Amino acid sequence: MEFDVAAATRIVAQVRPSLTGHQVEDETFEVRLDGSPQASVEILDAEYGGRLDVVDSATGQLSIHYRATVAVIDDPQPLVPRHGSPALERLELARPSRYCPSDHVGGIAAAEFGAIDGAGAQAAAIASWIHDRIGYVAGSTDVHDSAEHTLLTGQGVCRDFAHLGILLCRALDIPARFAAVFAPGLDPMDFHAVFEAWHDDGWWVYDATRLAPRQSLVRIATGRDAADTSFATVIGGRATLTEMSVMATVDGELPTDDHASLVALG
Amino acid sequence: MEFDVAAATRIVAQVRPSLTGHQVEDETFEVRLDGSPQASVEILDAEYGGRLDVVDSATGQLSIHYRATVAVIDDPQPLVPRHGSPALERLELARPSRYCPSDHVGGIAAAEFGAIDGAGAQAAAIASWIHDRIGYVAGSTDVHDSAEHTLLTGQGVCRDFAHLGILLCRALDIPARFAAVFAPGLDPMDFHAVFEAWHDDGWWVYDATRLAPRQSLVRIATGRDAADTSFATVIGGRATLTEMSVMATVDGELPTDDHASLVALG
Amino acid sequence: MEFDVAAATRIVAQVRPSLTGHQVEDETFEVRLDGSPQASVEILDAEYGGRLDVVDSATGQLSIHYRATVAVIDDPQPLVPRHGSPALERLELARPSRYCPSDHVGGIAAAEFGAIDGAGAQAAAIASWIHDRIGYVAGSTDVHDSAEHTLLTGQGVCRDFAHLGILLCRALDIPARFAAVFAPGLDPMDFHAVFEAWHDDGWWVYDATRLAPRQSLVRIATGRDAADTSFATVIGGRATLTEMSVMATVDGELPTDDHASLVALG
Amino acid sequence: MEFDVAAATRIVAQVRPSLTGHQVEDETFEVRLDGSPQASVEILDAEYGGRLDVVDSATGQLSIHYRATVAVIDDPQPLVPRHGSPALERLELARPSRYCPSDHVGGIAAAEFGAIDGAGAQAAAIASWIHDRIGYVAGSTDVHDSAEHTLLTGQGVCRDFAHLGILLCRALDIPARFAAVFAPGLDPMDFHAVFEAWHDDGWWVYDATRLAPRQSLVRIATGRDAADTSFATVIGGRATLTEMSVMATVDGELPTDDHASLVALG
Repeated sequence: MEFDVAAATRIVAQVRPSLTGHQVEDETFEVRLDGSPQASVEILDAEYGGRLDVVDSATGQLSIHYRATVAVIDDPQPLVPRHGSPALERLELARPSRYCPSDHVGGIAAAEFGAIDGAGAQAAAIASWIHDRIGYVAGSTDVHDSAEHTLLTGQGVCRDFAHLGILLCRALDIPARFAAVFAPGLDPMDFHAVFEAWHDDGWWVYDATRLAPRQSLVRIATGRDAADTSFATVIGGRATLTEMSVMATVDGELPTDDHASLVALG
Repeated sequence: MEFDVAAATRIVAQVRPSLTGHQVEDETFEVRLDGSPQASVEILDAEYGGRLDVVDSATGQLSIHYRATVAVIDDPQPLVPRHGSPALERLELARPSRYCPSDHVGGIAAAEFGAIDGAGAQAAAIASWIHDRIGYVAGSTDVHDSAEHTLLTGQGVCRDFAHLGILLCRALDIPARFAAVFAPGLDPMDFHAVFEAWHDDGWWVYDATRLAPRQSLVRIATGRDAADTSFATVIGGRATLTEMSVMATVDGELPTDDHASLVALG
Repeated sequence: MEFDVAAATRIVAQVRPSLTGHQVEDETFEVRLDGSPQASVEILDAEYGGRLDVVDSATGQLSIHYRATVAVIDDPQPLVPRHGSPALERLELARPSRYCPSDHVGGIAAAEFGAIDGAGAQAAAIASWIHDRIGYVAGSTDVHDSAEHTLLTGQGVCRDFAHLGILLCRALDIPARFAAVFAPGLDPMDFHAVFEAWHDDGWWVYDATRLAPRQSLVRIATGRDAADTSFATVIGGRATLTEMSVMATVDGELPTDDHASLVALG
Repeated sequence: MEFDVAAATRIVAQVRPSLTGHQVEDETFEVRLDGSPQASVEILDAEYGGRLDVVDSATGQLSIHYRATVAVIDDPQPLVPRHGSPALERLELARPSRYCPSDHVGGIAAAEFGAIDGAGAQAAAIASWIHDRIGYVAGSTDVHDSAEHTLLTGQGVCRDFAHLGILLCRALDIPARFAAVFAPGLDPMDFHAVFEAWHDDGWWVYDATRLAPRQSLVRIATGRDAADTSFATVIGGRATLTEMSVMATVDGELPTDDHASLVALG
């Protein structure tokens, strides 16, 4: 990521793989201002094993470069529950949030999915419905658009697909959360986003875009919606993201995803 | 209608039957301020045979009382086209409006109704879909809520049912308009609203609420949506509507409406 | 304008100068499909002297090219009132519309401008306030965004500046309308938009962007908001605008606009 | 609280004082179904010392009755930071949420408060501005309305006043949170809501309604906005709240609040 920093600012980066479900074997996080190395001020531990890098930058051209090798753990341990209480976490993740105002879509959620029996079948039906109905159109939404916008216009990108899944699940009282991930196989390559729904005693990952296999996703950040997982937040000052590139690959073959079976995200 | 006028104000009433499709046999429009008769300042001819009463009121208790006997014409003449050009009128009534932002719902309209062949079949399917999905819940919406709100929450009143019909028709390029009407047989009695869609060389009336027979509706005002047909608009000053009652009956039997055949509104 | 027409479609173009306030001395409107000249199906007279070209196109590359020379009339006659009744027109243009939901912003309009005496002073204050507060940022809004979006985010383009002026005027019961115009001197050159407010017995033009002199604007289309003035509407079929260029110049010197005096748009 | 439970449901009540800042000396939480005592299924510890009662109810008339005596601690300890990390908590509470979409109001927040120096002065100016501009109007908003609605319409109730404070603080990068409280002295008595902003190394409480002294508020629940603090959430099933009454009093005299000095909420 390259920033044009016009007034001294704080940038919070959220790009490291979470410490859950995979082993980070080696990683480098480099910050340069006008070409000179800078020390990252602070690493904060976020929920669900996420990590935030808090970078205070003077004016100039700021570049942040991160690279890591990650070993996926075959039998992923469940994420440490938010705040230590799984029951509370599920209550919280059934509430409406910035991009997923589920209190407002009870009618359409019930009309489309209310007759389906069981939260697992409902969540799977929601993911298929989104895949069939919503067009993946780059540039069709902006950072202010909620999942309602995508539901109505029929267009969005991965973030919107995930938000729409969360919106509809929560409207049916199914806890759901947003995961920002690295997605080997994604084309064009970029950060990716999926949603996870709680049913059958677990958190299951759904990717209504079907653009990358779920088995090789690497979790970065987890939250109520994209408001919690922004890869870069500018606080105070003035900074403009001028360039960004993302690359994620697997050693060996990409797994095959049938999008029918349940997959838990590492 | 009774108003508490706290600062001198202009009130524009839109309650008289339009001069199209029926014969107004006798009518009285009485305005009283603190019990004393006042002259109505001006009657304006509105589009589609509508009539507006512009009342300038000093402070006090303002009461407006209107009564009329209307003979429905058996073979209604088509409404005089807006601005004299039916082609222009249809273009205009296919555009988005305050409560019917049809530019924003192209995705869901196409997904639900795009495969249906022909504007008439689409409009009829829209009216049935609204009737089946949306709950008529008094108090569920307010004067700021658009048809998107009703689509998402699954609730509304007659005005919202009509707005939703217009929203979905226009999203499919079907011209549609809003009609405020008297509706004998409505229970509880109140002003009523329906929508009209253009297809098969005519304007056909749809009432997704199915609460009153369409044959005995009496048109008051017609427009893009309820922004054009408010029964009372307060301009400047300060006035609060404190009471309102509406009564509409037919001589003889109420007609029966099968809601399947096409009905043109008089 | 160049379109990629993927399925036979109707395109309604609204690019000719209106027949009010200026003399169109010569004009050509050329339509070509895959390079071959096509006849324009129909010219419709719109409100306020506007003109619509209805083009039915088969699949292929459609190009529309329009060129005209216009003589501005020194002493412009008032626009023919909409529907023949100026009083009704003003009522209609005080109502909320798609991009100007004035019923919803009564609080902020009253707080900012309610203490100013007189509609003319209020309209002028609104135009200055918009100019001072809102940033002109290309790409900051899309075709679905209303004036509320611009009020809150503080960004927009000419269309949004005009919508915001209309929104705030109407919230104060000042009739206001949207005008799409050619604007010699605009940089970068494009279609431009301004708003007109009714006060002091006339319609006065305000351009909160202050990007081009008001005296040499040439009116194209006039309406409640941009929903009425789209330079190209695609009806049915499938067509994508792939290229557009606009050029407007004056013979001689551009006039100077102090943005303080009242200017009526020709 | 009385509920009409039409289909077996879970109700999560959030009405007990939090365990922070005051001593709960005695309390009873009684649940009755059709008059017979029921055991509350589970008490969950929520963030910031909050407590949730999870009640599973069969069909019938459900009544929940809670009563407590609370001793306010003179020198309140700071709330245990959410998730154990105050830095992370502040990052999280600067993000947009369901009713406080602060990403969307950067323009108006900067225009009104950007020139004020320091987060404390900004937060105080925001609270005064809300108090001066927004009318407290019972029934003017519903459960779906965000703080943007209140900002634009100029009306709301305590929940909306608090949301608007949070909205504007976060738009200026000031962390802010929502607190549902008991408010002795409130008239008419009901649940109350205030907001807290982070500045000068502490969380300070603001009540833009100025309807009750801040010193005797008793915290119930704390969160991003009202989505986190609902006093009753119905999950699955079908239940309608049919009656609710709240009463909060102090022993002795109500404190006096000048609304100028800083007050930390117990």
